[in-house]
Amino acid sequence: MQFEIVARCPDTGARAGRLTLPHGEVLTPLFMPVGTQATVKSLAPAELEALGAHVVLANTYHLALRPGPDVVAALGGLHKFMGWPHNLLTDSGGFQVFSLGHLRRVDADGVSFRSHIDGSEQRLTPESAVAIQEQLGADIIMAFDECAPSDADEEHHRQAMVRTSRWAARCRQAQTRRDQSLFGIVQGGLFPYLRRQSAETLVAMDFPGYAVGGLSLGEPKAQMWRVLEATTCHLPLDKPRYLMGVGSPEDLFEAVARGVDMMDAVLPTRVARNGAFFTRRGRRNIRNAAFRTMDAPVEEGCDCYTCTHFSAAYVHHLFRCEELLAYRLASIHNLRFAVSLMEEVRRAIVAGRFAQLREEFLAGYQATDEGVRLEQKRRWEASHGR
Amino acid sequence: MQFEIVARCPDTGARAGRLTLPHGEVLTPLFMPVGTQATVKSLAPAELEALGAHVVLANTYHLALRPGPDVVAALGGLHKFMGWPHNLLTDSGGFQVFSLGHLRRVDADGVSFRSHIDGSEQRLTPESAVAIQEQLGADIIMAFDECAPSDADEEHHRQAMVRTSRWAARCRQAQTRRDQSLFGIVQGGLFPYLRRQSAETLVAMDFPGYAVGGLSLGEPKAQMWRVLEATTCHLPLDKPRYLMGVGSPEDLFEAVARGVDMMDAVLPTRVARNGAFFTRRGRRNIRNAAFRTMDAPVEEGCDCYTCTHFSAAYVHHLFRCEELLAYRLASIHNLRFAVSLMEEVRRAIVAGRFAQLREEFLAGYQATDEGVRLEQKRRWEASHGR
Repeated sequence: MQFEIVARCPDTGARAGRLTLPHGEVLTPLFMPVGTQATVKSLAPAELEALGAHVVLANTYHLALRPGPDVVAALGGLHKFMGWPHNLLTDSGGFQVFSLGHLRRVDADGVSFRSHIDGSEQRLTPESAVAIQEQLGADIIMAFDECAPSDADEEHHRQAMVRTSRWAARCRQAQTRRDQSLFGIVQGGLFPYLRRQSAETLVAMDFPGYAVGGLSLGEPKAQMWRVLEATTCHLPLDKPRYLMGVGSPEDLFEAVARGVDMMDAVLPTRVARNGAFFTRRGRRNIRNAAFRTMDAPVEEGCDCYTCTHFSAAYVHHLFRCEELLAYRLASIHNLRFAVSLMEEVRRAIVAGRFAQLREEFLAGYQATDEGVRLEQKRRWEASHGR
Repeated sequence: MQFEIVARCPDTGARAGRLTLPHGEVLTPLFMPVGTQATVKSLAPAELEALGAHVVLANTYHLALRPGPDVVAALGGLHKFMGWPHNLLTDSGGFQVFSLGHLRRVDADGVSFRSHIDGSEQRLTPESAVAIQEQLGADIIMAFDECAPSDADEEHHRQAMVRTSRWAARCRQAQTRRDQSLFGIVQGGLFPYLRRQSAETLVAMDFPGYAVGGLSLGEPKAQMWRVLEATTCHLPLDKPRYLMGVGSPEDLFEAVARGVDMMDAVLPTRVARNGAFFTRRGRRNIRNAAFRTMDAPVEEGCDCYTCTHFSAAYVHHLFRCEELLAYRLASIHNLRFAVSLMEEVRRAIVAGRFAQLREEFLAGYQATDEGVRLEQKRRWEASHGR
């Protein structure tokens, strides 16, 4: 893996870069769609390609349970299995395992848990998380971390952070494939000094890239951005930084301004399945009666498949009828929105007008507080194993 | 509309034809996918095009209730609304209205019923069914018929058939658009003499095409084919015949052998959503453990998108995970199977070897009796308003 910074914003921490991975070159900052179970919900690979996705995420926890890493490996690895010839990133399963709440038991060596599918006893350790990710074969793999709930006490966060660092070292040790890039994950809750300690420990291990985990779990956005700032400033400038699980349109600007290069989120596809469309003026719910007779795309000027082929009225009709095509058309639009917004952000950084674009966009964009609140609540509950 | 017969099978009633419609020429015999609510479940128009669909069905009853014919008309008609630039056929809503059971009340003039969506009082008459279909703007529209349950008594079938004929005349009278072809529908239950009377009455009205309704509603298949034979023999050779709602792979051969030119069925897409794939050897359920590690397409040699892009193991995985992409991949395969089987049937008729192909196919194809039974039960229940 190679990473090169091609431009930096003079007013913020934003950077434009170029990441060279085994399955092709990728421009940063980058939004990555999430395909938890080796499929981005409702979409085929060609649609992801058409909307400009370059890296797709999949999840170690889910794929380890079903279909199992042996099956994926026997079928030629994850790229071939899911028909995605471009880059892949697998999360380590840490976040998902810790989301299981009372169904998991942590010890110094790893985590025992019960499968959410059949209740069977399972175990993940730093070594097995790496072994599974090597069988899956993604281009970027993640260290196995402990993600504590954001409202856990300081001692809990300290212990989780220390454990995450030890596990990161063991992941590095366990790695046998040299064609995969293993990223370390910074933890430390909302405590800047723990974040700093976490970052410094990981940086000393010299990972090819660094992720920031454990954010956007219910804390106020302003606090999240302060903690992010207090984290990225301790990460080397010449390595990619990946903010995990954060990716609403307004978040893209705030994270990039703080030096983030890569982001992923299920938000665009999850809200899509509820009928929420991202637009330049904020989220719009296509089920609203206002769209019933709208003989125009959901967003004028949008270059996505949905907006260039169908009227808002038709998409409204599909949602009202709960037709399967509805979820696909909305997912395509929202992912294209996030991907093209990042493309625009990158162009702005290169052209030296990122700060201006950020201001213009945020002034025009009204995030639906209700939607943001619900998504934060969901992530908070997930991080508490509910 | 023009219809031309280009070849006839010397051994059976099978014919190969060419139907010229406002949105392009269509080769017969023809299988037509069903898009009840202006969408073939889970598929986009480009996918229907790619799998070789030439005529798509939509339903007057469903579209009249939602989004309403005024909305579709204001948006430029059904072709534009659903993004389908090829031919469309709308069913009259007769079958759906009669499926409502105790929620509908028939009189000489039409049918009053309650909407299955909001319980509101609605009414369809021959005149309004035609008016709505003119607003929708399909290339082929259907007369408003009364479809009696297959096990209704002789008198009930006689009355329904007489009423269907009277209503057919009123539909013809009500028609104002000359670019749409209105087909009459033969009824008469399982009574050959009623079928004959129905056919003769309709033929005297000189429709551009004739449909056979009220079959495959739970009666034994052998009886269905006898009744079909006793119907098509009273229809003019030079007009297209359309067998409604029948379309399993084995049915295609039996119907074509009895002179049918057009067929539609929800069966391929409905069973697809349950994981049943048509293959040359019969139906296979992709959920079966046998497919878990199958590193080959569901059907070797199949030219559909699903089989040319994904292993059976991946499709199995998607079904086990209940991922939305699963339903699409299965629907594409089954529709391509039906469409390409009809293409093969047509080539065989033209080459004078239809009888041979039919024998070979049926010898190799094992219909899953359970699946057939369930689908017949469903149609039987629908025709009884359950």
